[in-house]
Amino acid sequence: MAYINVPEGLPGIRGLMAFRPETAQPLNDLAETLLRSENSLTPGERELIATFVSSLNDCFFCQNSHGGYAQYFLNCDTHFIDNVKNDYMSANIPEKLRALLAIAESVTRGGKNVTQKQIDNARDLGATDYEIHDTVLIAAAFCMFNRYVDGLGTSAPDNRDYYITRAAGRAHLGYANYNPKD
Amino acid sequence: MAYINVPEGLPGIRGLMAFRPETAQPLNDLAETLLRSENSLTPGERELIATFVSSLNDCFFCQNSHGGYAQYFLNCDTHFIDNVKNDYMSANIPEKLRALLAIAESVTRGGKNVTQKQIDNARDLGATDYEIHDTVLIAAAFCMFNRYVDGLGTSAPDNRDYYITRAAGRAHLGYANYNPKD
Repeated sequence: MAYINVPEGLPGIRGLMAFRPETAQPLNDLAETLLRSENSLTPGERELIATFVSSLNDCFFCQNSHGGYAQYFLNCDTHFIDNVKNDYMSANIPEKLRALLAIAESVTRGGKNVTQKQIDNARDLGATDYEIHDTVLIAAAFCMFNRYVDGLGTSAPDNRDYYITRAAGRAHLGYANYNPKD
Repeated sequence: MAYINVPEGLPGIRGLMAFRPETAQPLNDLAETLLRSENSLTPGERELIATFVSSLNDCFFCQNSHGGYAQYFLNCDTHFIDNVKNDYMSANIPEKLRALLAIAESVTRGGKNVTQKQIDNARDLGATDYEIHDTVLIAAAFCMFNRYVDGLGTSAPDNRDYYITRAAGRAHLGYANYNPKD
């Protein structure tokens, strides 16, 4: 049970968004721009960055919600998602994405951990300024979402299939008009 | 110099917001709702929470920008702001605010660090569910803003008076219509 009186039956961030729609709107607008809007990084790649950061922050609800979306968009299985979470350096992903995940990892530990060498490496592998910007902001934003969800002690279904099934049915709805009660 | 090609002469988050207005808008909408909109916590108290979290995260630009706003709204001096940053347990602040800062500190270290005892203590001292919610989200949001500003290697004026003077002139403009070039 969450630390505050959120509507029943709405796990994770959904209960918080129903409790406080005034903050839910900009949070969803931010998620829409970062994860779904037109971008040279695919929705699957961006959801994978969000999943990876949420895993580093040990947020069960976020890593499985966004892991479900990543799995859907990348058309991959749970094993692939777990490989990236557990050892992205060895996972079967494009080198540019690996370099962006390294930046995301540093951001998660604290902004000052990002190094010029990491930036140069990402750029050498083809990353643009926009992609570097969005990677840093996705990682930073999930450091917020993860703390929001866990800091208020929200509940989360423990069955991973719940998230995978839900994501498959909702992936194309996006975040901008997100209704936490649906 | 920032890691990406932001417009010259715009320090901290201002250059990033000018670089990517599509993400600047929801970020500013979130800041407006959390820090300025009608609330039983005053703008000064909310800016103080933001300053405290930014100090814990060692983000020079954010702790001084928001420290300037806190100082303006609380009508206090720099010494008071520093007392809160360095030792909020002994600082001369209301007990309810102290309890909320304790929650903010836990959120900053990671959402799971918040305890039922901290929540009960804040509630015993008069904190409402809305105040607890907003404290957690302010803290979480500044874990994002701080990582965004430092993760992209932005520059920041090193003279504290710059921030205090700027805040005094801009405190009532709010964030919703924020123009990073002004």
